[in-house]
Amino acid sequence: MSYQIAVLAGDGIGPEVMAEARKVLKATEERFALSIEYSEYDVGGAAIDNHGCPLPEATLKGCEASDAILFGSVGGPKWEHLAPNDQPERGALLPLRGHFELFCNMRPAKLHAGLEHMSPLRSDISSRGFDVLCVRELTSGIYFGKPKGRQGEGENEEAFDTMRYSRKEIRRIAKIAFETAQGRRKKVTSVDKANVLACSVLWREVVEDVAKDFPDVELEHIYIDNATMQLLRRPDEFDVMLCSNLFGDIISDEIAMLTGSMGLLSSISMNSSGFGLYEPAGGSAPDIAGQGIANPVAQILSAALLLRHSLKQDAAAAAIEKAVGQALSDGYLTGELLSSDERHKAKSTSEMGDYIAQLI
Amino acid sequence: MSYQIAVLAGDGIGPEVMAEARKVLKATEERFALSIEYSEYDVGGAAIDNHGCPLPEATLKGCEASDAILFGSVGGPKWEHLAPNDQPERGALLPLRGHFELFCNMRPAKLHAGLEHMSPLRSDISSRGFDVLCVRELTSGIYFGKPKGRQGEGENEEAFDTMRYSRKEIRRIAKIAFETAQGRRKKVTSVDKANVLACSVLWREVVEDVAKDFPDVELEHIYIDNATMQLLRRPDEFDVMLCSNLFGDIISDEIAMLTGSMGLLSSISMNSSGFGLYEPAGGSAPDIAGQGIANPVAQILSAALLLRHSLKQDAAAAAIEKAVGQALSDGYLTGELLSSDERHKAKSTSEMGDYIAQLI
Ligand SMILES: CC(C)[C@H](C(=O)O)[C@@H](O)C(=O)O
Ligand SMILES: CC(C)[C@H](C(=O)O)[C@@H](O)C(=O)O
Repeated sequence: MSYQIAVLAGDGIGPEVMAEARKVLKATEERFALSIEYSEYDVGGAAIDNHGCPLPEATLKGCEASDAILFGSVGGPKWEHLAPNDQPERGALLPLRGHFELFCNMRPAKLHAGLEHMSPLRSDISSRGFDVLCVRELTSGIYFGKPKGRQGEGENEEAFDTMRYSRKEIRRIAKIAFETAQGRRKKVTSVDKANVLACSVLWREVVEDVAKDFPDVELEHIYIDNATMQLLRRPDEFDVMLCSNLFGDIISDEIAMLTGSMGLLSSISMNSSGFGLYEPAGGSAPDIAGQGIANPVAQILSAALLLRHSLKQDAAAAAIEKAVGQALSDGYLTGELLSSDERHKAKSTSEMGDYIAQLI
Repeated sequence: MSYQIAVLAGDGIGPEVMAEARKVLKATEERFALSIEYSEYDVGGAAIDNHGCPLPEATLKGCEASDAILFGSVGGPKWEHLAPNDQPERGALLPLRGHFELFCNMRPAKLHAGLEHMSPLRSDISSRGFDVLCVRELTSGIYFGKPKGRQGEGENEEAFDTMRYSRKEIRRIAKIAFETAQGRRKKVTSVDKANVLACSVLWREVVEDVAKDFPDVELEHIYIDNATMQLLRRPDEFDVMLCSNLFGDIISDEIAMLTGSMGLLSSISMNSSGFGLYEPAGGSAPDIAGQGIANPVAQILSAALLLRHSLKQDAAAAAIEKAVGQALSDGYLTGELLSSDERHKAKSTSEMGDYIAQLI
């Protein structure tokens, strides 16, 4: 069995951390006798520079011909003057999500043992640890709802966006949240704004309905404003957080920051046939690009998620995750995870990749 | 000169903290020879119980006949089974905001000296302190945009909400943010999601335009997802945060929680003629209602804000704020602000009110 992976490294630190993920994948292929073919495509700012648009036709075609997409990160100051639609992030990620109907986005945020001090939370809160998974709807809601645009003149000119959700769309993402919770701590917290939004009222109705098929999973509803607050006080009481597109954007970033170690977090964006895009949670970090100090772990873990979810290679995925865990507890850390007086022990991007690859 | 205040105490701890605010107002009237008349009206759950709806006609008429509204808090488990439109919060607050066009909502969140340990943030972050003011647009956006509703059948049934902003609406709230920043640390952070929302693109345009009239104020733009994160790492770098209705709902709650002492925070909702509604940041806290332990400070500070902004009684407002500051530094604290081994020193709701009134 041979697999095809589209590699979209992108901008900023994207290419350097991708190189490490490739090293680790190579070691994994050898150990598990997998045959994977990689095709690299331009995306984001790099694609704008080379082809005039953030998601060229060739990239899209290449992704279509693959079993999964390993994504780096896109964007940077160089392209910030462009119109929103043409910018790397919006112009690449949103069309990819839409084109492949990657409706299911999973963003885990776990406080790594030994890295509790990285969390911006008070030590008595962070010492309790937390392990939250944001399950975010990714192809509907106010991101894609029509009409979206402008009308009118002068001071009366107005802009409008439409938030829109169908029962079907809510049901399929809710199901995944409940199924996933069954394999975890069996709790789903559904985030909405049902005291204001018609979409949230429907959201709540459908989620309640789906919950009936999962009597072993506890369901609670929380307003987005309150969720943002409660995560600061008692993150350990959340398990799976089920969110619409916009609220998931906010919650997933909040929980990522609560870990204090974004360089360790990766995410999945999947469709109903198991095709997916796998990417680190952090951005392209142009400020540290090219210095060899970026943390490649999130990109490496993205590769592990790809192996598990799109290629169904559980053992290979687990081996990567184990190697990463091992490397971290062996003190293999990039600079941002070390206090200033320990910074001299920092490993470089490639030292991290080499060590993890060698552990496999 | 005689003033008229509509008092809407509401549910839960509303009535008890309102009683303390009234004590303090009485002392203030005496000291500053003010003549204020108070009229009490039912609102929220109490109004549902007594009149069948959360905002009875008599309450609305009473507010119309007043110079300002002193609002307590509404809601509680007793009314949670009601349809969203009929619930105390949505059924009272949203129509009040709409009816009086209270487009400008200001929610300050300052870490009180001596109460840094209450913040859920890591001590090296909270020890730097912070003082953030959320200026939130309150009568437009996705809260009030039309169309809002449902259509279709079965699994294709969908709900929709419309986010809508005109240049005019953005301009008037942006102006207030910049004017307010001039009296503070001269920085405005405008929160949007311009990489996804048409409303945010217009928002950014108009905010840039308004900024030209305030060359002494620094302007930065930040995406809502990133704002949620950066507030956790470096809250001290924010001054005024300018937000649309929905994003302000989220940001104001996040910064309130970051202080760890919601019982000290109050807020203003104002229209263009200076008429306003003044309310504590916290909710009706039904779990502690009737026990005499609720913190009345936020309600008392709401009264101070009312005196300043709607009655233009600056000296009287300052006297209340000074008395509150004095009481807190004298160790007059309700239980939620004390650690468990100091809890025995907690003051009751009425002890707090008595002491603050007496300081005036
Ligand atoms: C770049 C942007 C369009 C995107 C989003 O809002 O979904 C990003 O913030 C994310 O969360 O993946
Ligand atoms: C009760 C609710 C409608 C309201 C809002 O969303 O504005 C509340 O959360 C607030 O922030 O005042």
